[in-house]
Amino acid sequence: MNRDYRVLIDCRDEKGLVYKISKVFYDFGLNMEKNREYVDAQNGKFFMRSEVRGVFEPDKLSGALRAVLPEGARIRLVEPGKKRIVLMATKENHCLGDILIRHEADELEAEIVGVVSNYDLLRPLVEKFAIPYICVSHEGLSRPEHERRVLEAIESFGPVDYIVLAKYMRILTPEFVACFEERIINIHHSFLPAFIGANPYKQAYDRGVKIIGATAHFVNNNLDEGPIIAQDVLPVTHAMDWEQMRNAGRDVEKVVLAKALKLALEDKIFVYANKTVIFD
Amino acid sequence: MNRDYRVLIDCRDEKGLVYKISKVFYDFGLNMEKNREYVDAQNGKFFMRSEVRGVFEPDKLSGALRAVLPEGARIRLVEPGKKRIVLMATKENHCLGDILIRHEADELEAEIVGVVSNYDLLRPLVEKFAIPYICVSHEGLSRPEHERRVLEAIESFGPVDYIVLAKYMRILTPEFVACFEERIINIHHSFLPAFIGANPYKQAYDRGVKIIGATAHFVNNNLDEGPIIAQDVLPVTHAMDWEQMRNAGRDVEKVVLAKALKLALEDKIFVYANKTVIFD
Amino acid sequence: MNRDYRVLIDCRDEKGLVYKISKVFYDFGLNMEKNREYVDAQNGKFFMRSEVRGVFEPDKLSGALRAVLPEGARIRLVEPGKKRIVLMATKENHCLGDILIRHEADELEAEIVGVVSNYDLLRPLVEKFAIPYICVSHEGLSRPEHERRVLEAIESFGPVDYIVLAKYMRILTPEFVACFEERIINIHHSFLPAFIGANPYKQAYDRGVKIIGATAHFVNNNLDEGPIIAQDVLPVTHAMDWEQMRNAGRDVEKVVLAKALKLALEDKIFVYANKTVIFD
Amino acid sequence: MNRDYRVLIDCRDEKGLVYKISKVFYDFGLNMEKNREYVDAQNGKFFMRSEVRGVFEPDKLSGALRAVLPEGARIRLVEPGKKRIVLMATKENHCLGDILIRHEADELEAEIVGVVSNYDLLRPLVEKFAIPYICVSHEGLSRPEHERRVLEAIESFGPVDYIVLAKYMRILTPEFVACFEERIINIHHSFLPAFIGANPYKQAYDRGVKIIGATAHFVNNNLDEGPIIAQDVLPVTHAMDWEQMRNAGRDVEKVVLAKALKLALEDKIFVYANKTVIFD
Repeated sequence: MNRDYRVLIDCRDEKGLVYKISKVFYDFGLNMEKNREYVDAQNGKFFMRSEVRGVFEPDKLSGALRAVLPEGARIRLVEPGKKRIVLMATKENHCLGDILIRHEADELEAEIVGVVSNYDLLRPLVEKFAIPYICVSHEGLSRPEHERRVLEAIESFGPVDYIVLAKYMRILTPEFVACFEERIINIHHSFLPAFIGANPYKQAYDRGVKIIGATAHFVNNNLDEGPIIAQDVLPVTHAMDWEQMRNAGRDVEKVVLAKALKLALEDKIFVYANKTVIFD
Repeated sequence: MNRDYRVLIDCRDEKGLVYKISKVFYDFGLNMEKNREYVDAQNGKFFMRSEVRGVFEPDKLSGALRAVLPEGARIRLVEPGKKRIVLMATKENHCLGDILIRHEADELEAEIVGVVSNYDLLRPLVEKFAIPYICVSHEGLSRPEHERRVLEAIESFGPVDYIVLAKYMRILTPEFVACFEERIINIHHSFLPAFIGANPYKQAYDRGVKIIGATAHFVNNNLDEGPIIAQDVLPVTHAMDWEQMRNAGRDVEKVVLAKALKLALEDKIFVYANKTVIFD
Repeated sequence: MNRDYRVLIDCRDEKGLVYKISKVFYDFGLNMEKNREYVDAQNGKFFMRSEVRGVFEPDKLSGALRAVLPEGARIRLVEPGKKRIVLMATKENHCLGDILIRHEADELEAEIVGVVSNYDLLRPLVEKFAIPYICVSHEGLSRPEHERRVLEAIESFGPVDYIVLAKYMRILTPEFVACFEERIINIHHSFLPAFIGANPYKQAYDRGVKIIGATAHFVNNNLDEGPIIAQDVLPVTHAMDWEQMRNAGRDVEKVVLAKALKLALEDKIFVYANKTVIFD
Repeated sequence: MNRDYRVLIDCRDEKGLVYKISKVFYDFGLNMEKNREYVDAQNGKFFMRSEVRGVFEPDKLSGALRAVLPEGARIRLVEPGKKRIVLMATKENHCLGDILIRHEADELEAEIVGVVSNYDLLRPLVEKFAIPYICVSHEGLSRPEHERRVLEAIESFGPVDYIVLAKYMRILTPEFVACFEERIINIHHSFLPAFIGANPYKQAYDRGVKIIGATAHFVNNNLDEGPIIAQDVLPVTHAMDWEQMRNAGRDVEKVVLAKALKLALEDKIFVYANKTVIFD
């Protein structure tokens, strides 16, 4: 029976990799439906993403690939299908609502298994869609204690592939982030690295910029410094105060976050040297 | 007691209009909080939108303005506040859902009084938000008969300021349009005037364009030829088939439609010579 | 001695093409420095562009490739280097000047071997850069006669790889176009297929669009209907008359034309079914 | 005889300013051809730019305006016409060449009275256009001494309205800047405030951004921190190294710089609180 798989390979670059990999696919009788490669010549790194179809045993394919690849190669075989995601949010509904509407239309390769928020405000919206909502208030709690409870909430939803910070306005500790390496996607409301930190729209207004933006990125240990997945901008004028910039910016935020989420769900992102290689 | 009003004037251009109008405001003791004018020199037309605040009787202000303006001037005094809108849709949920989420966050100066569709598909989504949904199937009905029933459905919601075609995929007759002159906003899924008519994404794919877009416009008697309110685009590549273009295009459609709707709700649009003057 | 070549292949799609092609490269001891493929699944077409480096005889490589490819495959081996281009223009200097400045900075993989115009206006600009300029006035000539003389002018510059219509405002006959199949690049001052034909800025102004654009395309037999290479747009408002749109549009025109020209010079364009596959 | 003037007013905001100003214009029998106002409500500041036409003595108009405006009002009456500009550059020709081509086509309200560079590289380009070129090498000179000689070079061209740093890659001292307050326009090759300082394309590459940009701004005492006039961006991918980003970015740089220059030449910029109010 035909299987569809996404094969993701990254390894040290050397001569003949495309030949060796495509030979394995050919020997297994697989069709390469789509294929993208990238060589980072400066760092001697090779990246490849193939969509293959055929009759095969994934373990054997994986083994055959490993046999021809340089030592230390990372090989991932991913079967297309719905990934399990948890959304986190604070008070604003635009990113959260946007993902809920896409989910409702079955536009995402994902099942939203639950939503966690530090407020109870968004519960009515989320529960309209029959999705579990857990409020973990941060009030009166130390950061580690709050995060411990958030983790418990997430775990209560079962296994999780990605956590999407859909305007979750609290900083996460390295300990929390370490539990979900390269699996937490955040939307920051500026074109990073401009306006790191709190209230970037206010910062943008004060600086008098003519363009504002949004950045979706994986979360790492340093605030707003993780690998960037997607960015977009929109023009602003002197006539807009910072609340107007914030309102206008929401449309960019939600579209950029959804774009990044889709790339992740479709296994189109490699992370390397705090940057992303994206085969869109 | 202070009143806030939007004063919209359009008339034949002549010397001294700004002076005469601002004198009336001054004599009434009004603050002009915001002000925009535009002179179409070619056609000798003057447009002005002012936001005024003060203690005054609207009728008297209107009369005083009329006294200083050229014959045939159009003067509109609009009190800011929620306008009553009806949404119409067919099967796709992205534009409809986007407006529902904005409505839920009180982002729009509007109350959605009801939704009309020629299918029953979107009922579950709309009813989550406790908004009346009427399905008027077109099957087995002549176009006039179908529209008669749609009109009845709309009327059942009470008075209506704007009708928003949020991916309503049927053509409206001049008779229907005449009932809501300059009050029906449509989103067309191409950068008009390119790709008028059916399946513009398929047309765009066949033509091999490198950019696709969306256009929000008022509906007039000719398909896709009404006054354009807002447009935006996004880049595409040869590697996208038309369904991928359609999916990517949805993000532009919903943002452009919402932008146009906001402009209408905030009384920032003048229509003239099948074009719009927009004071954003 | 190491050679760098660009290998461009397009053929009927079949299983194993990447394997077979990369095997040839591997057997020849070549490094694939860069590689892009695309399969048009709908039409069963395969496209591949590779940058290879190594010690080899081009004819032998070509023959080895042909041996493994389906019948009718098109194989092009292109050595990187300056292509010979002729610019054609009428009165406006912005596209022409832009290419001259890029040429001066050695930014293009091209040598401008000459400029042909139907006016003498741009001669001073061109001759500043010590480039031959031939004026072939169309006045008093039939179209075929004019084109015959233009052809003579072009031929007087020696062999030509590409002809760039840098705002050349005359229509070319199929006979002329046939002499330079897929080798004439034109810039049209609208986002095609909107506003085909004369004065698209006036058309755009009359229609009241909120976005204008430019399209670079190969010229075929039908006016403004050739394969599109690159497009871009910029926002406009009601406050701009058509001359202001034209002036603003010039910046888009010159950037889009230069982008298309670079893609052509770097052999990154395949033409198929009146569309382009672009490996940028 | 009819005069055309641009009237630029900025002052403390108070009730009735539009009325009082337009009354003066009316009493002088002037036509207000174009008019834009902006009130910065937060800071209580009023800005207005009018294009007026009529028979009048500028001094009397100015006096009449002063009589009705709050104390400390800044009133500028500017007659449209060519401003005198000096260009400064280092090695790259794209911004400089772009302005030269525009100048050649009489697209700018400006006369380029001279070019100053710290290298002799661009001399052949500039002299093609019969524009004086002075090379002031910085080698072996202290910064103050170098700037003293640059100043002398500039002064040798006669009176100067604006200095345009068309990729002039040296930092200017506060002393130099003070000689041309709000009259030096710089292009910085990033979307400020991201990537202040040296080699922003390298910084952008290292950070892995998906968008790069350019910023035109007035120069003040702090590097890259002056009031922003115009910005634009373009998308980039992981596949571009920093030189490719730099090359692609040049198109944005030259267009953004030209846009800012035009706004300045047409007296459409107010500077306030290290920001710009732009009536485009």
